[in-house]
Amino acid sequence: MTSTVSIPSVRAYAAHAPDSGLAPWQYEPRDPRPDDVAIEILYCGVCHTDIHFVENDWGMTLYPVVPGHEIIGRVTAAGPEVTRFKPGDIVGVGCMVDSCRECSNCRDGLEQYCDQGSVFTYNGIDRPTGRVTYGGYSERIQVKEAFVVSVPDKLEPASAAPILCAGITTYSPLRHVGVKPGDRVGVVGMGGLGHMGIKFARAMGAEVTLFTRTEAKVEEGKRNGAEHVVVSSDVEEMEKAAGSLHYILDTAPVEHDLNPYIACLRVDGTYLLVGQLTPLNPPINPVPLLMGRRSLMGSLIGGMSETQEVLDFCAEYQ
Amino acid sequence: MTSTVSIPSVRAYAAHAPDSGLAPWQYEPRDPRPDDVAIEILYCGVCHTDIHFVENDWGMTLYPVVPGHEIIGRVTAAGPEVTRFKPGDIVGVGCMVDSCRECSNCRDGLEQYCDQGSVFTYNGIDRPTGRVTYGGYSERIQVKEAFVVSVPDKLEPASAAPILCAGITTYSPLRHVGVKPGDRVGVVGMGGLGHMGIKFARAMGAEVTLFTRTEAKVEEGKRNGAEHVVVSSDVEEMEKAAGSLHYILDTAPVEHDLNPYIACLRVDGTYLLVGQLTPLNPPINPVPLLMGRRSLMGSLIGGMSETQEVLDFCAEYQ
Repeated sequence: MTSTVSIPSVRAYAAHAPDSGLAPWQYEPRDPRPDDVAIEILYCGVCHTDIHFVENDWGMTLYPVVPGHEIIGRVTAAGPEVTRFKPGDIVGVGCMVDSCRECSNCRDGLEQYCDQGSVFTYNGIDRPTGRVTYGGYSERIQVKEAFVVSVPDKLEPASAAPILCAGITTYSPLRHVGVKPGDRVGVVGMGGLGHMGIKFARAMGAEVTLFTRTEAKVEEGKRNGAEHVVVSSDVEEMEKAAGSLHYILDTAPVEHDLNPYIACLRVDGTYLLVGQLTPLNPPINPVPLLMGRRSLMGSLIGGMSETQEVLDFCAEYQ
Repeated sequence: MTSTVSIPSVRAYAAHAPDSGLAPWQYEPRDPRPDDVAIEILYCGVCHTDIHFVENDWGMTLYPVVPGHEIIGRVTAAGPEVTRFKPGDIVGVGCMVDSCRECSNCRDGLEQYCDQGSVFTYNGIDRPTGRVTYGGYSERIQVKEAFVVSVPDKLEPASAAPILCAGITTYSPLRHVGVKPGDRVGVVGMGGLGHMGIKFARAMGAEVTLFTRTEAKVEEGKRNGAEHVVVSSDVEEMEKAAGSLHYILDTAPVEHDLNPYIACLRVDGTYLLVGQLTPLNPPINPVPLLMGRRSLMGSLIGGMSETQEVLDFCAEYQ
């Protein structure tokens, strides 16, 4: 009889098929590496993407899938090469756990656009082992130090979780285009991303207009910092907003007509698309783009240094 | 019997209906104003837009229409308020002859995006008189000084004409995004705009790739300065170009699928749309925009100071 080191299984919630829902499941973790941070998970946000993966809406789910990429936890162990974290630290893990770290995008801090593709926190493929990655609906996780962020003391850990996906997704494009005091920013949609977008744009000094389809969200928008709320089904209100905004952050995750919103941009205005992955139908009318040098730009989460930045920003401006 | 000052009629070519073609016609010019430059027209470029207006393709032609907005001429008289021109000067008039000159866009040198709409050289409405404007297929024209540009001595006047529309249309967006040595720029289409786009991008130091549908244009593209020519119907060649370009200038004036070209942009790349005015069909796939922070930007001609700049640039780099 030989004795072996026993690495305990990880207890998690997994879906096994599009209609199975989530149920308790256990998996054997990969072997720890010298640059790994071992994390006991305290909180994990529920992102709409998790539901897409559970239900295989994008046809790319590798079952069993353990969702969760808005992870807040406590460090339990740090590999010998880890320099920034020690047991007891409160840390976060977002949408990525690895990238090539060598391509020009990685070197520019844009790991989410890694030439070789970044490794997602769940439903990704761990490069060294070829194993599927499992996410934060789980009791613990081990993550390469470079993809772990520090949660500032001033942030309440449970509230910090959604910043790791919804937060960085909205913060990054607003920062990238340089939203500043005096700018007028529109936010389309008042869901998980939209309410963060309003708060960030406001914190950056902008005057914020929320576009929502539902009257019921007018008050919620104002409570979250929108100075103006336009009910987008109201043609007259939409026409009044024409040509008024420097930027529009569109967080709506479903197919919708962008044209009435694009008309609300000023000359040189930029439309920031972060939520929709299906073809832009009805088709974009290029005339308002040409007649005012307007842009349509996409953006995907943010890099690791910017993910740390947004946590620090939230700690400062909460 | 009273004597009146006789202002001679202007002889021009006009279309009177979508299917009439152009024929000699005469019109009475408006009264001269103190800031007018009177110009004897020497050359006028033929822009595709002229044909669109003659045939009422955009449903907005005011007949009779005298096309022509790539005008080169000699100053014959200058009003008392004119300071920059004198009789004998060789000058140019492009797509605009007036704007409000007071809105923020006009003050920023973006008269083409004037809040009140700029007055086009033909088929526009002259603000003080309410009269339709008539273009350069004509023997003379009188234009507000601020909308007249100086043709540098080093430029051959006949060759300079197309710079006033095709030239500024391609120069302005390339300048606006800051094309610089080392950048890789794609140009879609090898027509009037495309060949200028290639030359400008090359003169700005970029490595240029022409995309054309026709094998026959490969040599023409290279002769004009394209280092690479991709025949866009060749799927393999298109795939090889994927993710390689900082900017793409799309000059194609007809409905076409932008998606295969957008795939050729690098992360943070910008797609510059200057030719197409019909809805973007097939619909734009937003995934490459999101997965690489790529942008789609429109651009319309350029402002007056930039129109002078492009003439000076051409004189220097010809």
